[in-house]
Amino acid sequence: MGEKEFQFGIDYHPEHADRSLWESDARRMKEMGVRLVRMMEFAWIILEPQEGCQDFSLFDEVIDIFAGHGIKAVLGTPTATPPVWLAEKHPDIIRISIDGKVRQFGTRRECCYNSAHYREAGLSIVESIARHFGKNQNVVGWQIDNELGHEGTDICICDNCKDKWHAWLRKKFPSVQAMNKTWGTVFWGATYSSFEQVPIPTEQPLPHNAGLQLDYYRFCSDSAVSFVDDQIAILRKHIDSEQWISHNFYIPPVCNIIDHARMAENMDFAGYSNYPVWGDQDEPFPYYFNSYAFSAIRGFKDSPNFTIFEQFAEAQGHVCLGYLPSYDEIVLWTNHAIAHGADRLFYFPWRTSRYGSEQLGYGILDSDNAESERYRRLRQNIIKNRDVHDKIVRSSIITPACLIYDKDNMRVLWDQYLSKGLYEKPTPYVQAGYELELTRWFAPYVLFNINADVKKPSQVDLSRYSIISLPMYQMADPEFVGRIEKWVHEGGILVLGWRAGARDMNNFAITDSLPGLFSELAGLKIKRFESLNRNKVKIKIGLIPAKGEVWADLIEPVSAKAIAFYSDSKKHYSGTPAVTVNHYGKGTVYYLGTSPDPLGLFILFRKILKKGGLRPKFHGNGVEVIHRSGDDGKNFKVVLNHTAKSKLVSGKWIRPYGMMVLSE
Amino acid sequence: MGEKEFQFGIDYHPEHADRSLWESDARRMKEMGVRLVRMMEFAWIILEPQEGCQDFSLFDEVIDIFAGHGIKAVLGTPTATPPVWLAEKHPDIIRISIDGKVRQFGTRRECCYNSAHYREAGLSIVESIARHFGKNQNVVGWQIDNELGHEGTDICICDNCKDKWHAWLRKKFPSVQAMNKTWGTVFWGATYSSFEQVPIPTEQPLPHNAGLQLDYYRFCSDSAVSFVDDQIAILRKHIDSEQWISHNFYIPPVCNIIDHARMAENMDFAGYSNYPVWGDQDEPFPYYFNSYAFSAIRGFKDSPNFTIFEQFAEAQGHVCLGYLPSYDEIVLWTNHAIAHGADRLFYFPWRTSRYGSEQLGYGILDSDNAESERYRRLRQNIIKNRDVHDKIVRSSIITPACLIYDKDNMRVLWDQYLSKGLYEKPTPYVQAGYELELTRWFAPYVLFNINADVKKPSQVDLSRYSIISLPMYQMADPEFVGRIEKWVHEGGILVLGWRAGARDMNNFAITDSLPGLFSELAGLKIKRFESLNRNKVKIKIGLIPAKGEVWADLIEPVSAKAIAFYSDSKKHYSGTPAVTVNHYGKGTVYYLGTSPDPLGLFILFRKILKKGGLRPKFHGNGVEVIHRSGDDGKNFKVVLNHTAKSKLVSGKWIRPYGMMVLSE
Amino acid sequence: MGEKEFQFGIDYHPEHADRSLWESDARRMKEMGVRLVRMMEFAWIILEPQEGCQDFSLFDEVIDIFAGHGIKAVLGTPTATPPVWLAEKHPDIIRISIDGKVRQFGTRRECCYNSAHYREAGLSIVESIARHFGKNQNVVGWQIDNELGHEGTDICICDNCKDKWHAWLRKKFPSVQAMNKTWGTVFWGATYSSFEQVPIPTEQPLPHNAGLQLDYYRFCSDSAVSFVDDQIAILRKHIDSEQWISHNFYIPPVCNIIDHARMAENMDFAGYSNYPVWGDQDEPFPYYFNSYAFSAIRGFKDSPNFTIFEQFAEAQGHVCLGYLPSYDEIVLWTNHAIAHGADRLFYFPWRTSRYGSEQLGYGILDSDNAESERYRRLRQNIIKNRDVHDKIVRSSIITPACLIYDKDNMRVLWDQYLSKGLYEKPTPYVQAGYELELTRWFAPYVLFNINADVKKPSQVDLSRYSIISLPMYQMADPEFVGRIEKWVHEGGILVLGWRAGARDMNNFAITDSLPGLFSELAGLKIKRFESLNRNKVKIKIGLIPAKGEVWADLIEPVSAKAIAFYSDSKKHYSGTPAVTVNHYGKGTVYYLGTSPDPLGLFILFRKILKKGGLRPKFHGNGVEVIHRSGDDGKNFKVVLNHTAKSKLVSGKWIRPYGMMVLSE
Repeated sequence: MGEKEFQFGIDYHPEHADRSLWESDARRMKEMGVRLVRMMEFAWIILEPQEGCQDFSLFDEVIDIFAGHGIKAVLGTPTATPPVWLAEKHPDIIRISIDGKVRQFGTRRECCYNSAHYREAGLSIVESIARHFGKNQNVVGWQIDNELGHEGTDICICDNCKDKWHAWLRKKFPSVQAMNKTWGTVFWGATYSSFEQVPIPTEQPLPHNAGLQLDYYRFCSDSAVSFVDDQIAILRKHIDSEQWISHNFYIPPVCNIIDHARMAENMDFAGYSNYPVWGDQDEPFPYYFNSYAFSAIRGFKDSPNFTIFEQFAEAQGHVCLGYLPSYDEIVLWTNHAIAHGADRLFYFPWRTSRYGSEQLGYGILDSDNAESERYRRLRQNIIKNRDVHDKIVRSSIITPACLIYDKDNMRVLWDQYLSKGLYEKPTPYVQAGYELELTRWFAPYVLFNINADVKKPSQVDLSRYSIISLPMYQMADPEFVGRIEKWVHEGGILVLGWRAGARDMNNFAITDSLPGLFSELAGLKIKRFESLNRNKVKIKIGLIPAKGEVWADLIEPVSAKAIAFYSDSKKHYSGTPAVTVNHYGKGTVYYLGTSPDPLGLFILFRKILKKGGLRPKFHGNGVEVIHRSGDDGKNFKVVLNHTAKSKLVSGKWIRPYGMMVLSE
Repeated sequence: MGEKEFQFGIDYHPEHADRSLWESDARRMKEMGVRLVRMMEFAWIILEPQEGCQDFSLFDEVIDIFAGHGIKAVLGTPTATPPVWLAEKHPDIIRISIDGKVRQFGTRRECCYNSAHYREAGLSIVESIARHFGKNQNVVGWQIDNELGHEGTDICICDNCKDKWHAWLRKKFPSVQAMNKTWGTVFWGATYSSFEQVPIPTEQPLPHNAGLQLDYYRFCSDSAVSFVDDQIAILRKHIDSEQWISHNFYIPPVCNIIDHARMAENMDFAGYSNYPVWGDQDEPFPYYFNSYAFSAIRGFKDSPNFTIFEQFAEAQGHVCLGYLPSYDEIVLWTNHAIAHGADRLFYFPWRTSRYGSEQLGYGILDSDNAESERYRRLRQNIIKNRDVHDKIVRSSIITPACLIYDKDNMRVLWDQYLSKGLYEKPTPYVQAGYELELTRWFAPYVLFNINADVKKPSQVDLSRYSIISLPMYQMADPEFVGRIEKWVHEGGILVLGWRAGARDMNNFAITDSLPGLFSELAGLKIKRFESLNRNKVKIKIGLIPAKGEVWADLIEPVSAKAIAFYSDSKKHYSGTPAVTVNHYGKGTVYYLGTSPDPLGLFILFRKILKKGGLRPKFHGNGVEVIHRSGDDGKNFKVVLNHTAKSKLVSGKWIRPYGMMVLSE
Repeated sequence: MGEKEFQFGIDYHPEHADRSLWESDARRMKEMGVRLVRMMEFAWIILEPQEGCQDFSLFDEVIDIFAGHGIKAVLGTPTATPPVWLAEKHPDIIRISIDGKVRQFGTRRECCYNSAHYREAGLSIVESIARHFGKNQNVVGWQIDNELGHEGTDICICDNCKDKWHAWLRKKFPSVQAMNKTWGTVFWGATYSSFEQVPIPTEQPLPHNAGLQLDYYRFCSDSAVSFVDDQIAILRKHIDSEQWISHNFYIPPVCNIIDHARMAENMDFAGYSNYPVWGDQDEPFPYYFNSYAFSAIRGFKDSPNFTIFEQFAEAQGHVCLGYLPSYDEIVLWTNHAIAHGADRLFYFPWRTSRYGSEQLGYGILDSDNAESERYRRLRQNIIKNRDVHDKIVRSSIITPACLIYDKDNMRVLWDQYLSKGLYEKPTPYVQAGYELELTRWFAPYVLFNINADVKKPSQVDLSRYSIISLPMYQMADPEFVGRIEKWVHEGGILVLGWRAGARDMNNFAITDSLPGLFSELAGLKIKRFESLNRNKVKIKIGLIPAKGEVWADLIEPVSAKAIAFYSDSKKHYSGTPAVTVNHYGKGTVYYLGTSPDPLGLFILFRKILKKGGLRPKFHGNGVEVIHRSGDDGKNFKVVLNHTAKSKLVSGKWIRPYGMMVLSE
């Protein structure tokens, strides 16, 4: 086996195309420099047109054709779209959304993970295809299902779930009494005497018991995870050991209550559907948001690499479109993913569907099937930049910083969001407050071109990092705090966010003063706080005026020293510290009592990063540098220009939406 | 029979009034100049107080009394409000709204067109009243039901509908396979093996298959239409041939998925409920919106005339009020309808209801029953302007222009609206994006005082027109495009909107480049486009800066020449054509790649209309001229002042909200 | 028995605390100056852990412990939170919200007042505790349930309600015919032939019959009231006559369709949960809003005193927080309540709950149980100001003014709100338009420091007042109007709002001209009106320009004289009267055809109050003077500074958020 090479792929639906096109499609993909084709993820009804009657010939034929052009196949397990005969025979496979809407056949991911009928039929088709394609040398890997949890499919409130929920509780708690105690059901007299009495928490005028709600989210996550684990186990039993297994996780910074890192556990690597703009968005996400997403995906498996299973090829939407990027920008988005660790990348889709629910999901080719400018421009990048892509894929990103993501804290904030600044519902099924706030905490690393990881507490090897950001860490794990303490003591720089340490691991308020377990580390106490909601409070960092957002802790320093103050004459706490620094052993702890606005973040992090010897470099908004360590032992940097203007970086001009590789 | 005379009428509810008032009501109406009275549209329970027990004496008596004052009756079939005994005996008559809300007895139009019990009982009462009143010489016509489809009653998702939906599919498609192919159900593996499996599409987190959704809308429309057709058939069997049949269509520019033109097919003429302001509106609709509505109504039957079944008499609303017009403005609204082709007009209502759901539906008389200033002012207009009204009613409007309205294209855009600029939901049951955008395309004709028709493709006689506007014509009928081609070739001016020709008649994306069938006509190709949603893009028309809205096609001219360009430095397509002109045979095709803002429309249409020799005349915003051809062979014009200021037109002053008739 | 003393109390949940804390909690409360403790309101499951098995030992013990520290108990009947065994055995106890959402166990007040199973079990536990604690000398009073009607629990649409609704109708109306007539069901042909046919009105695209809707609200109110009356009757049977009964009514200015005054009828006094800021509010309510609330609570029982059962102790919310007051402001809020008539005040809660649904409901103590600054500051106020509080509690407020609140008029406006200016839905279950508009009408009295009562028509003793404000009094009771007439004739000043007298007591439009019964009093006629919704209209009061909001009556003076005019050139009624004055006997009637903006109110009321000899005094926004009559026969005034700045009042400086008592 030779050196690692970057692999481009295409998401392809042979079932949508006339058979006569398969051969030319394969040829044109090959000419584009593509080596992989992903397919079959919605093809259950093709594979099993009637119950018990299976027919894999279509994909056999397509795989052969593509193999003839040197293109290997990646197969999706087709469980995202049940066949109509299953839905007809077992109406109970249909899920019910959190808002009470009963999902319908034909709209994708309409099945409940806890339906025994769905699970049984799903695992059965997975087993059949695993047996059939598992030894096929032209099949190199598998994608489980499709974007699990997307579009509100992380939570279901159907009767199947109710039974499984009670079973889950019975397994978790040694007794009903233990459950009552863990949740604090004595509050509002909602004490249970049997597990069966516990409701599935639906949307109500008042919040449910916070412990019950958190456990229901954990249960829902476990339901989805076990669905995936079952599929993986069956695949592993039958497939060749060379064939890998992964999944296209839906955009992590706006995700859901599923523990994606846990879901990825038994996969070979994590994957991602990368759409920097989608649907009716008037602007793409800021570039640092996408960088954050790549770090998050890397974090799922604590791995430097991941696969982009779906990469933006052209403007897409279900019912509405928005921003149209230039071809240069589309190409940059590909290179952006590669610079951050993608080692495989599939464009979605090959050819725009003429019908169905994604007529506005524009592909590399239009439905006229002519060679499009997109095709030419993407091909050009694939072929001309092959050496660059390979150089990158043989290197690894250098990340002296890490941002901590904690799923349980995210789940708690889903409902009990504290501040309207942490409440953002782009759809009825997503509460992205925690995720979007994390982007704020990640952005300074991107702006100053210090690459950062995103990890969960149980997974992070602190010794790898010089600096750790830990925002919104209310439920604090004593074991993790212990490791943090030791790490700070030995010289680490901790950037701790407001509300840290406010809860124990059952989400009970602590019986200490805030910030609880972090009190000594931070060298301060907090007795009061104000939710700023969507307002701002004036602060001063040194002499520079900035703004605080979302929240304002009223900090009482013990050993800490203030480095920023509230300076808002409308606030009774004006003049008190907003940000502090505390020295602890050889290390340093910064405590941010508020979420600085962009200017505040800039000033503050330049100070923090400089003092920590991390050499922040700002090349202007939109210029990003990814530092990588090559397989030749030499470091180099990938410079990306996310703007429509040429930029000067390290003495060299980089063209609009361009990529440049420089040695360090 | 003498010359045609304009007929004023009143909407009257004798069942609300004390019997002692009937006589004086009739007398006061007569004194006002009124010749018609409409009634009975909500009176089922009066006519049939118990099942099988009918009593028509109340209306017999009222008809006699009015006849005594020379006032003829128009009767509504009373199917909009079922009697309580029917709702009690057959709960399944109740419809379920698209959002899952089960309608309730007592709130009007709560019955499902597909309920057999409702249909049977409804046709039975219609037959009875047809037999009873059909030969009555004092009854001149019939209104079917009331504002069908209004308030979300175009769509129902109940079980009655499910059965009829499957039957409809069975009738439409020769086989399930044909249905699958027509819809492209291979997408997301939603392929059916029997018609019974097809769901009624309800609101879901993801869109349903676009073909299925479109057919469901067609089915719903057919359900309502067949309900009307059945009533008409029964009426025709029993009524005198002199008695006409019509319907008060609800405001067409904000309407619903019912094909109103088809619904009107078996009627003698179309009717309309004309409320230039209603409910909580802070301003009346712009005058060109109402002009558009009149043209739309004329278009339903391809007729120069229509009836206003309900005309604004005073501010009205169900729960909230808004703008209060002056008496002059109220009078103008009457004359506006007449100038555009109304030959009958009923004011709604006679006297404000003291109770029920329309206590805020103010009438000509207040509940104090005193002679109101409204009564006096409306009477004055009726009596003093009798000659003018008669002159107008004996003439016909001169319309060199036509705007094409296409119901299927409207239905497709209901869900797949492309741009938030085409998404406008004033209530949960109306998506008025297509309709409101059409108003934009109609407005220039009004501003430049070139009267225009609104027609559907299958109905339009192109030879009548010099200029045709064809916006949002995605699903393009080859037969119609063929006729257009020929018409342009012979000298027609076509104003073609973005997105034209993008789909075939099954709503599949075409396999050609855009604009598909229009490519040669327009002389250009389109490969990319941006949805502008609610933003604007700068354009230049010649040297004049304006804005594009909703959408931006990136036009690649072949034979066309640009007459406007994108000029927005933020857009990568700045400098490319936004509007083009192409000569085709003796004709001209303008292609608008974006929706110009008001200034842009003004500049552009002045240019287009002038070049086309159509003599646009702009007298200032709010001054409208309706050109008519009199029965004496002489043309004249009706000038209306929709403003609160006097205006100078053709050298004559027209007073605020005034009407002036001038010879051409 | 000595002189009356002000009593401070604490809301306490011993069931949330470790037993070991009870003794120290009691001690610390005593040290704070507290004499009362409220508890047990959510403790049904503690008292009756299984059906029929009751155990009162916990509260016996706690009562004893507190008694040992001189603290008496107030007990809540625990019916707000049913025990799980009841919900499990009788699922039909669960209520269904107006929007169709089925409530769930565990979320408080989830039971329907009309569930026989709930009523029976609830009255049974109330009887048991009444027997058990009713003679306990350490129990001084009872709170019925908790904040009845809050969070959408005023309305239920379940099947239990349906049966009771029909029974209620049968009782109210001598016949179905009488009901039909009272509601005007002839409208839209919705005439009933049996009571059982009448639906429970749910949310529909169109409004229900206004009479039916009003009666349903009355029925819902009666259901809640009878639930309370039943509890009171049982308590009275068993408890000592010294023990009082009351209820913590939820914030009256944003309340619901329950008739709180009627609900309070059989109680000893009314109570209130006083949260000047709660949840995600970015600002506290304006101070005059809270003053209005105190007056409203006094009005429930026509009494100078009331109890604050829950008083803001620290920022609270269920899922989100907001504004954080300074300690000075928190103390002021306590003194504000006392100055307006509170004679008992309980802080809520003692210690922040660590778990459950109110983790963000911060208490006097934090969950760290340390002595908090809040504890110290509240104690300081209790102890240092004891004489002041006692002086106030031995005096009574002097109120020359009264604002009329009418529940039926509020209910009618809930749905038929006339103007979007009267439509304010902070949650799906509250329509606070009427209530918030009343605040506007109350504010001038606060600004000019003339204390005012809030009373309902049937209850108000007009002879006590010099001036009466009567806004939004559409449904006019002839008996009350008669009394008003006589009172004005003898010198009263009536400030009458637009829309007065528009309806009779069945909510039928009157058959006279507006303002109907008030025509002679006001000396004018109204034929037309405009709903301004959320827009403003320019007016001039004398020479001073101001704005009118919400509504604009077009006034035709008969004997009245205009004192303000519409002056908006965009309105056809510009130049006509907006506010008039009419002399009637020795009295004066001001008619406000619009709702003046703050400046307009200021100008207008200064004029009205001065002319009426009421000596308005304005000390600047935020300075409030409460005039009281002491038990020594001397009047004094309590001055409160609601601002963060020192203010000069009557030559004395009052510190920020300070209280000052001055003799008159």
